[in-house]
Order: sequence, then structure tokens, then C-alpha cells
Amino acid sequence: MEEQEATLPPKAEFSEWYNDILWRAEIMDVRYPVKGLYVWYPFGFGIRKRVYSVLRDLLDRDHEETLFPLLIPENEFMKEAEHIKGFEEEVYWVTHGGTTPLDVKLALRPTSETAIYPMYALWVRSHADLPIKVYQIVNTFRYETKHTRPLIRLREITSFKEAHTVHATWEDAEATVEDAIALYREFYSRMCVPVLISKRPSWDKFPGADYTIAVDTIMPDGRTLQIGTVHHLGDHFSKTFSICYEDVSGQQQYCYQTCYGISERSIAALISLHGDDRGLALPPEVAPVQIVIVPVIMKKREDEVVAAAAALKQELESAGYRVKVDSRDMRPGAKYYYWELRGVPLRIEVGPRDLDAGVVTAVTRFGQKSQVSRTELTAGVQTKMAEINRELSDRAEQHVKDHLYAVKDVAGLKEAVKAGVAAVHWCGDKECADRLEEAADASVLGTEVRSDLVDKEPGACVICGKPGSVMTLVGRSY
Amino acid sequence: MEEQEATLPPKAEFSEWYNDILWRAEIMDVRYPVKGLYVWYPFGFGIRKRVYSVLRDLLDRDHEETLFPLLIPENEFMKEAEHIKGFEEEVYWVTHGGTTPLDVKLALRPTSETAIYPMYALWVRSHADLPIKVYQIVNTFRYETKHTRPLIRLREITSFKEAHTVHATWEDAEATVEDAIALYREFYSRMCVPVLISKRPSWDKFPGADYTIAVDTIMPDGRTLQIGTVHHLGDHFSKTFSICYEDVSGQQQYCYQTCYGISERSIAALISLHGDDRGLALPPEVAPVQIVIVPVIMKKREDEVVAAAAALKQELESAGYRVKVDSRDMRPGAKYYYWELRGVPLRIEVGPRDLDAGVVTAVTRFGQKSQVSRTELTAGVQTKMAEINRELSDRAEQHVKDHLYAVKDVAGLKEAVKAGVAAVHWCGDKECADRLEEAADASVLGTEVRSDLVDKEPGACVICGKPGSVMTLVGRSY
Repeated sequence: MEEQEATLPPKAEFSEWYNDILWRAEIMDVRYPVKGLYVWYPFGFGIRKRVYSVLRDLLDRDHEETLFPLLIPENEFMKEAEHIKGFEEEVYWVTHGGTTPLDVKLALRPTSETAIYPMYALWVRSHADLPIKVYQIVNTFRYETKHTRPLIRLREITSFKEAHTVHATWEDAEATVEDAIALYREFYSRMCVPVLISKRPSWDKFPGADYTIAVDTIMPDGRTLQIGTVHHLGDHFSKTFSICYEDVSGQQQYCYQTCYGISERSIAALISLHGDDRGLALPPEVAPVQIVIVPVIMKKREDEVVAAAAALKQELESAGYRVKVDSRDMRPGAKYYYWELRGVPLRIEVGPRDLDAGVVTAVTRFGQKSQVSRTELTAGVQTKMAEINRELSDRAEQHVKDHLYAVKDVAGLKEAVKAGVAAVHWCGDKECADRLEEAADASVLGTEVRSDLVDKEPGACVICGKPGSVMTLVGRSY
Repeated sequence: MEEQEATLPPKAEFSEWYNDILWRAEIMDVRYPVKGLYVWYPFGFGIRKRVYSVLRDLLDRDHEETLFPLLIPENEFMKEAEHIKGFEEEVYWVTHGGTTPLDVKLALRPTSETAIYPMYALWVRSHADLPIKVYQIVNTFRYETKHTRPLIRLREITSFKEAHTVHATWEDAEATVEDAIALYREFYSRMCVPVLISKRPSWDKFPGADYTIAVDTIMPDGRTLQIGTVHHLGDHFSKTFSICYEDVSGQQQYCYQTCYGISERSIAALISLHGDDRGLALPPEVAPVQIVIVPVIMKKREDEVVAAAAALKQELESAGYRVKVDSRDMRPGAKYYYWELRGVPLRIEVGPRDLDAGVVTAVTRFGQKSQVSRTELTAGVQTKMAEINRELSDRAEQHVKDHLYAVKDVAGLKEAVKAGVAAVHWCGDKECADRLEEAADASVLGTEVRSDLVDKEPGACVICGKPGSVMTLVGRSY
């Protein structure tokens, strides 16, 4: 097995590790013959399905699921000037049906504002129709000219989970922005992924938004990955698309809107933050296989061990776990390697000695080995699963802590940003930001930082020295 | 309420009824500004979600779910000559990314053979890799030039559930065709939709298939709707895409393949077969709301009735039902109309008299009213639900029976086909089929009919009189 283990690059070489884990753990096949498009293997799809099911459950609490078309006619797409400016170089255009040129070109949605909002103009009539809170899970497209990367920079985002809400007032929309942030925080907490939430600088907000709150995490190489955004759209789109309601006094008013979304980068973060030199490590909630049972077959008592493994499987499945028995004719070490690579949270070994002792041997993905009493199996496994979840969260949070640097002067900035994310004071002036970004060779991620890991006391701007400047995150982003 | 009831056209005027029910019951909004593209309302999406969840469960028994890209490069798409001939007039082409013309045009998948099979060529190495049985649920596109119709003839099929399998032998593929037919039969049985299964004539098979088995049903107007197909692909695609395996003796062999799919026509059939003059009627398994509780509020004892309704809801939800309490301030009749229109299988009324008698009043979607003992509520409701399911199946089956005509001579053909589907003997000769279709002003649907409703004894061809000719279905299809 040693030679096989050696084939996964160490995680310290993150870029190689990431590319390798995707096919070794059977998440994605990158050999599809178009740049930026990838194929989901069944095992990867199994992770994805469970991750999205968590998000869907959270959204279903107070959103309704819908579905709008992929194709957006050019005239609708071109209506909101600021919005189209943000996307015009990235949009795929359908120009022909069969051999016939289309009268009106059709855009593949890069995001669905211009598909949904013409319908909202029909749906909203009175204040009684508000709020509207719907979401859809759809494929979206970007003609990326930069280096593409599976799950991170794609030409087909195969499942953008985008919510679009409509409200009577700016304040109602603002409250929904806060709700959405809380929802994303809960989602990532269940993925054991720590997040840094901040307000993007005005030049980096969503095209057509009043402001953008972003959810970032820090990848193993110290670069940040944007894994969710929430936009307060003000009344920009409602004015463009005539989304109006009649208020209680009979007056027509423009609506206020928000939108927020999460792409498959959520899965990139999950894979990257939790994995290690041995492969994937998956939170139990989203692992396609939660428990692998390996019967330890000796010369004698084989039937007894096989029967015990089957009984264990049945008992654990009844308790709601996803379980595999690995009875393949290969060395135990090879089996361990195989399932560790695929991130299975818990391995249970059962052999003649375990049977005699009335126990099973439980080994977590991180190698903690212990005996669990056979008569208290499900309670024991439940405890283990909670421990694994906590360990995943703790490790990931430690990683983020270790890559956050409080920086007091320009001199320390470049070094900090090479290793992770710098927290610095910035006065809010664009000119200072330009100089800051140049000195750091990185970008201003955001202000109004929401994270216990970052000290939020104001201080002197690292560029101009202005006192009372706000804490600002600066980093190199994917 | 009478005026409102009058607004849904009677189902006898099927085309008007169908268009009307889609927006009245909030299934689809047809006002999206591109022909053939529609928007799913949340209520419609709720039906769709449950229908597909049934199909997914059936497929998950022995298929794995995956996901392949939407965009297919022109060179791959053009490889299989017969296949492309079948689709060339229907394919949408992406020609530009931003303002840049693409080097290679990209097709929006009309179906995914040419996206998946180049990957299968990489995935299949040895006989140990076979069979492969995967499926995906994806949006597919057809540039329809004919009259489009929501759920029936679309430019974006928003969820094509397509399976693609690979096998070592022609016979293995054939066995999988039979398994797929059984799976689709089970699926439609759970939807209470009766099906006619037959083998399409050679000129109407899938482009690139050895043969096609189709699943049809008969719509309220007597026209048939194809609601599923299963294709034996032989080795046509494996030869084109070089999908080979090494057999036990070390020889390279071409694989054999099948594919099969179901579109949102499954939902069109469900809506059309079960609905009536009052609106939708949904099988309990897929109804977004299974039970509506209407508190009958009189002047007195209002609190008591409201509390009883809430307790009923809680008890029924604990038993796993999807329940709404309709406490809106409107007349009961208006509420009944509202929920009947949306197909809710069971209405429970509870008022002071019910409380005194220790019962609730249960009314099925078809109007059967009865008392259910309050202490045996869930058992009583379970019985009602089973009855409703049976009634839906029986009604739909009766409808199909009533629209099937055994026809002995050409004279009766046109009349029969005007009202429904004709079962006639045909010798298998293409020239006879042409004359048959001309006489009927309809199409040969298929032979090798699998349905208890059709007598399958051979007989004399209605055109040439050749004895021993097979039973053949002829009808006008959507």
C-alpha cells in the first residue's frame, strides 16, 4: 500500500493535492472535452446531493422553490445598464436554432435577475403580495477566460442556489439580507467550514446592487475563496423592470429587492478545508458512506465474523446511518486506505477477538481508535460522530485562525498576505485602498467584518494614518 | 363562488381546460417572454419535486446519479451520423462567449448521448467495469418550430430524467430494456396513470437505436402522449465513440448500450388524466398539500374549533401527512373551491357539531363525504387516502379503456382514431403502414403491445389481408 499512498501529493502542495483528490476520490472527471466543464462521478454527486439537501432544508423554512428558464432574451438581459456592464464579457450567446439564425439572441443565464424580474413585474400587484421569497437551484454559465478550476472557476456552474426576494421597503430588504447571512452562517457551520463575513468595497459589489455582503473562507494555501454572497439590490432593478406594488393608501410604489447565492464552491471549500495527506475527510451529515465495516477475517471463525458484520450493518442502518461492509478479498490496510481517501468518517473493524470481548473497534477518519461495547453500539457511534464533527470544525477553525494576521503597518502587509489574510485599518478612501492593494499585491476583501476571530476595534489607517479607521480584510482571492 | 367556478372551462374542452388549469392552480406561468419557455410556480414545483422524488427512488435502487455538462462541442455532437440527422434541425447553438466568436460551436444538449459517451470511452476498460447504470436529471433543449405547449412540447425541458447504461452483450442490454420498462410501469402505477407500452415502428425509433419501446397514455381528447421511451442502442454508439472492454480472454470488444428517459410530460399526463371540471386531482403521494383542514366557525365556540383544527393538524403531521389549516376569513364554499382547484386529495371539516359527536367530517376530492372517528383519525385518513388513490387509478384506467377501439377494417379506422386509439392488425409492411396512416389520418404507434386492455391475438392485416398480422396501435399523438 505504501506506493499507493505516496501517489496522493501532500496537502502542503495544495494545488496538486486538489487536482489529484478530485479524481482519486471520484468526485469529478476533468477530462470532458471543453475547458471549464466537468463531469460529476457518482461518489462526488453523492456528496453534492447531501450538501444541497442541507441548504434546501434551511431555505425551505421560509422560501419557496421555483424554476425559471435558462435562456434570457437579449432585450431583457440588456435592460439594466450597470448589471450588463458587469457581465457582458462573460455571457454565452445562443444565436442559432438548428441552421436558422434566431430573431432575438438568447443569453445563457450567468445569474437570473433578468429572467426572474420581468415575471415579478407581473406577480407583484399589492402590498399583500409582499414579501416574495423564492429560490431556485439551476445551472448558470460564465465564459471564463481566466484559468478554470473544477468547482472553483467554472464555465458551467451546475447548481447555483440563488434566492430572489421582493419587499415593500428598503428596511425590509435589509432585514432579509441579515436573515440570509444568518442562514449561510448556519449552513457553513453544519459543513464545519468557518467563514469570514464582510461588506465588499463599493467597487467590488454585485453589478446593480446597493451593497454586497460576502462570505469567504481561507483555503489551505492562504488564499480566500468567496463561498456565498448576499446583495441588497435597493430599487435599481424594480425601477428597470417596473416591479411596483399598491400601498395601503392606494399609491404605486417601487419595490426593494435582495438576491443571494451559493455555488458549488461550497463543495470546494468542504473538500479543501477538511482533507489531509490521506485524502478526503467528510462531515458525517454529508458523507455518502458514513461508516465502513471491515470484517477482520482470520483462518477460523470466518462465518461468525461475516455474520457479525452483517448484523452490525443492519443495526446501524436501522439507526439511520449510511453503511458499507467491505468484504473484498484484499489486505485490511488497502481497505483502510481506500475508505480514508474517500473521507468516510468512521471505520468499524470486527474480528474474532472483538467478538470474544463483546466489542467492536472504532477508528475515526483522523485515526483515533477505541473499543465500543457491542450492546451500546448506536449510542457509541453517535458519540463518535459528534466527536468527528467537532474535530472537523476545530481543525478548520484553527486553520483560519492560523492564517489571519493583524497587521499594523504597510511593511508587514505583503508578508502576511503571502501566508493568509491581513486584518488592517483602512480609512475608506479609494486612493488609500489602491495603495494598500498595491503594497499587499492583494485585494481589499471587505469591511464591517463579522467574525469572532478578528478584533474589530477602529485604529489608524495603515496608509494615511487617519484615526478611527475601520478594520478591513485584505487577501489574495481565488 | 358560482361565478368563479364558471371560469374554469369544462374538461370536455380539453385544450382550453389545460391552458387554464396551469395558471389557475399555479403550476406554470406561461408569460415568460420567449416561446416554449415557462416558469414553474412554487405550487407546481411542489408537485414536480414529489413526482421526481418517486422516480429518483426507483432509479436509485440500481442506478447511480451523476451529472454531465450541458454544452456539447460540435465535433463530438456530429460524430454519430444517424443521431445527428435526427436532431440537426432542433439544436440550439452557442456561437459566442461575450463578444468573442467561439472556436468550436457548442450545442445545448437535446439529449446527452454525445456528452456522456466520450467519457464512457474513458471509463470502461475491462469486463469488470460493466454494467454501468447511471442517470441524470437535467435540462435539455429543442428548437421546436411546431406549436409549443407547456409541459408537452417545450424548448427547454427543464428536467429530463435520462439513464444511460453500458453492457458486455446485446442480451444484457436487452434485459436492461426490460428492467427499464418495468421501472417506468411501476412509476406510472404510483402516479395512477395507465400506460400503453409498445415497440415503435422502425421509422420512428430513436436516431441511432436498434429499437425503441415507448410508453404512451391517452389524453382526455383521445390523442396519445408519449411519456417515456427506452432504447436499445446496440453497438452503434460504442463503435462511434470507441467504448470497448477487454473480455475474460483478453480480447477488445465493443460494448452494447441502452438509454431511457422521462420528461415533464409525466406531469402533463398526471394533470390531464386526473383533473376534472373542478380542477386538479392529485394522487396523495405527490400532492404538495394532502389534507386541508377547514374549521367551521360559528358565532360561538370559535376558540374551541380553532384549537381542535390545530390539534388535528399536529396529529396528522406527526403521522407524516402534509397538512394546511385554512383559517382565512372567507366563506367555506370559497375555501372548498380553492383547494379542490389545487387537487388536494382530502378535506377535513371540523365544527361544533363534529366536536360534540367526537368525529371529523372527511370529504374526498371527488366529493365522497363521511365521518371519521376522532380517536381513530390517522387510521381513518389512511383508509381514505388509499380509496382516493384507487379511485384515481380506476377512473384513469376506465378512461383509457373507453378510448381504445378494436377495429376490424379500414372503414372504421378514421372514426375510431378521431375518438381515441385504434387497435388493428398490420402485417409489418411499410407500404401497408403508409396506407393505414393515410386512411386513419394518424400514426402507427407501435406493435408488440404490452397492455391487458388490448387483445393481442394475431389476425388479418386491415390493408392487405395477410393472416397472422400483429396487433398494432394507431392514434393521433401530441
